[in-house]
Amino acid sequence: MEKESEIRPVDGGLTLIEGIKASGVPCGLKRNKKDLAIIYSEVPAVTAGVFTRNRVQAAPIKLCRERTGNLIRAVVVNSGNANACTGEKGLANAYAMAELASRALQVNPEQIMVCSTGVIGTQLPMEKIRAGIESAAAALTTEPSGTLDAAEAILTTDTVIKQVAYRARLSERTVHLAGIAKGSGMIAPNMATMLAFLVTDLRFSRQLLQKLLTRAVERSFNLITVDGDTSTNDTVLLLANGSSGVEVREGDASCRLFYRMLEQACRRLAYQIVADGEGANRVIALTVAGAPDFLVASRLARAVLNSPLVKTAFYGQDANWGRIMSALGNAGVGLDPEKVDIYLGSVQVAAGGGAVPFDEQAAATVLQQEEVPVLVELHAGRVSVTAWGTDLSPEYIRINSGYRS
Amino acid sequence: MEKESEIRPVDGGLTLIEGIKASGVPCGLKRNKKDLAIIYSEVPAVTAGVFTRNRVQAAPIKLCRERTGNLIRAVVVNSGNANACTGEKGLANAYAMAELASRALQVNPEQIMVCSTGVIGTQLPMEKIRAGIESAAAALTTEPSGTLDAAEAILTTDTVIKQVAYRARLSERTVHLAGIAKGSGMIAPNMATMLAFLVTDLRFSRQLLQKLLTRAVERSFNLITVDGDTSTNDTVLLLANGSSGVEVREGDASCRLFYRMLEQACRRLAYQIVADGEGANRVIALTVAGAPDFLVASRLARAVLNSPLVKTAFYGQDANWGRIMSALGNAGVGLDPEKVDIYLGSVQVAAGGGAVPFDEQAAATVLQQEEVPVLVELHAGRVSVTAWGTDLSPEYIRINSGYRS
Repeated sequence: MEKESEIRPVDGGLTLIEGIKASGVPCGLKRNKKDLAIIYSEVPAVTAGVFTRNRVQAAPIKLCRERTGNLIRAVVVNSGNANACTGEKGLANAYAMAELASRALQVNPEQIMVCSTGVIGTQLPMEKIRAGIESAAAALTTEPSGTLDAAEAILTTDTVIKQVAYRARLSERTVHLAGIAKGSGMIAPNMATMLAFLVTDLRFSRQLLQKLLTRAVERSFNLITVDGDTSTNDTVLLLANGSSGVEVREGDASCRLFYRMLEQACRRLAYQIVADGEGANRVIALTVAGAPDFLVASRLARAVLNSPLVKTAFYGQDANWGRIMSALGNAGVGLDPEKVDIYLGSVQVAAGGGAVPFDEQAAATVLQQEEVPVLVELHAGRVSVTAWGTDLSPEYIRINSGYRS
Repeated sequence: MEKESEIRPVDGGLTLIEGIKASGVPCGLKRNKKDLAIIYSEVPAVTAGVFTRNRVQAAPIKLCRERTGNLIRAVVVNSGNANACTGEKGLANAYAMAELASRALQVNPEQIMVCSTGVIGTQLPMEKIRAGIESAAAALTTEPSGTLDAAEAILTTDTVIKQVAYRARLSERTVHLAGIAKGSGMIAPNMATMLAFLVTDLRFSRQLLQKLLTRAVERSFNLITVDGDTSTNDTVLLLANGSSGVEVREGDASCRLFYRMLEQACRRLAYQIVADGEGANRVIALTVAGAPDFLVASRLARAVLNSPLVKTAFYGQDANWGRIMSALGNAGVGLDPEKVDIYLGSVQVAAGGGAVPFDEQAAATVLQQEEVPVLVELHAGRVSVTAWGTDLSPEYIRINSGYRS
């Protein structure tokens, strides 16, 4: 048994949390694949949510925003159809999904969240959704298979499921945090077709839970990018059902421990999303160090990771640090280019914003790795941020040029 | 002979302007290709300039900014090396280029502008530059071949030269505006590895010339995008040598006529740059109409044209209007999604932000065109802007993944 303050990754998923059931079933939105998931809490759970900043918001986002203040009993998620740009009818369909789940689960519809992901602009086939909700409700289980099925049912172009689970000791009890996510295309700063659902057995006030989730999302999901696009449907939900009997209060050591666990879980899920990015051959792990503050560091990191010229250079395993410099200059934040040092792994490739002789062979070895660590040292402060992106491969284009058809 | 107020495209290039000579020669920066150009004015020309907003600015940008107030006699341009991220030595080399040209042309070095484009982070080979400047100075000519050679010498990954020339009648004289440009990779809003040099035989005050150029660039070069990246070297220069004897004064009909000619020339060059974009299969001509103002319309247009998901959909000839909606929502400007109509050519594909039944075959025909007209009608005002972008093809990645090596 670990000491207090120690956080341990563990096997098992959402259903590790006492009082949580999950399921995932196929209902015909995707061909021969699971496409409808339910996460169910036996008791009403305090819930926090972070949503896309895209001005075009899918119907379920409107429903979720409205209900984020409520105690939540279930989250219903479909893949294959985003229910976005679907107007009044789409909004009615989102509420109808909650209504259907309410009947199947025997809970108040106000206590149900709804999420969708997939193609934009097509109305949900409600007969399939109805059948899917009924069969997912019947399939709910506390077994690990429930989490795996749910994690699978929320995927779109993802190739693998994403999940995390952590355990810690707090007030002499064992407490947990677990989560699942989907990502792949459109992954970008400010959350892009990305869904993540986290559950904990700790107890929180709504305000504190929201505050912690907002901060953790800023430092995890909002630091990743595959293609710089932000979707109409992005959602992160965190449910706290209190089943451990331990309450977290702001300012406590418990609060700091939980926040560490939450940020770690979110960063781990974010990393899994990037690593499974559409057509990604490698992950670029970019650290911007020596920054005056988090905002400057994260903006610079995102500018570099979103640059198609930087991304294609990494695809070509080309130590083209000049493109990194140029992308930094495009971030729209103050920057003294003549102080910037750049490293690929341990190989310094630029100093004071200019060229230095470097071992091309050593750099080539770093560039061949599945994860390429890049360090940009600004010498302008003490804040450091690590963000993740991918290279840009012809495969990305193949996947995205025919997705709708 | 045309009437006053009529603007006519004509053959011939920079050297159409009385008192202007041009040349382009190979000096070994690129393999077996012309890579050094000079544009020379027999009399000192009033000059306006617009430069990259990237925080990382190449050495020649610093020189040009400093000299934009001066009367200018010559512009020296090399391709193959950007002289960017080259520190003190790079800056000294930019000034040395002007010095070398000053001796070869027998003009004051303060009257010489210097531009570079190419790979970032490598010092200029000054011996080659010296030889190139001497041979380009000797090759200066008023023949059309001079313009063609100069237009060729400024190219990098471009596949064709870009030039325009216009003639108009003003105060009973014939007046001209001509220009050359290079673009291709890194073309983006806010000017990206893009050079353009324009010359007119009209006479201006410095202030007025700058005002008109700034406005025309905003409505032409700043509305195009290939990959959303903005380079360290972008420059547009406009030289007015007054050789027609006609002076343009602010508020005059002559001023309006000249501005029309200038915006048309800049838009024509911008279009040529996009059409020659790296790995571009087609040009997307996006009109955002019904906007409250230019800023909103241009931001929305750029957000759509910069979205990799939109660009790959056009590559795949996929009428995926949902991605256009999502990109509009990401532009960071106010938008009422439920008012938006979208057309591909004359085929309406979305109405009120949602799906409408449309003829997929008719849309497919539009999407196969070399230039795909897209209309986004916001129903939120009376301003309309047309911007140009490209699709995103695997070829873009091939070109950019190994450019440095």
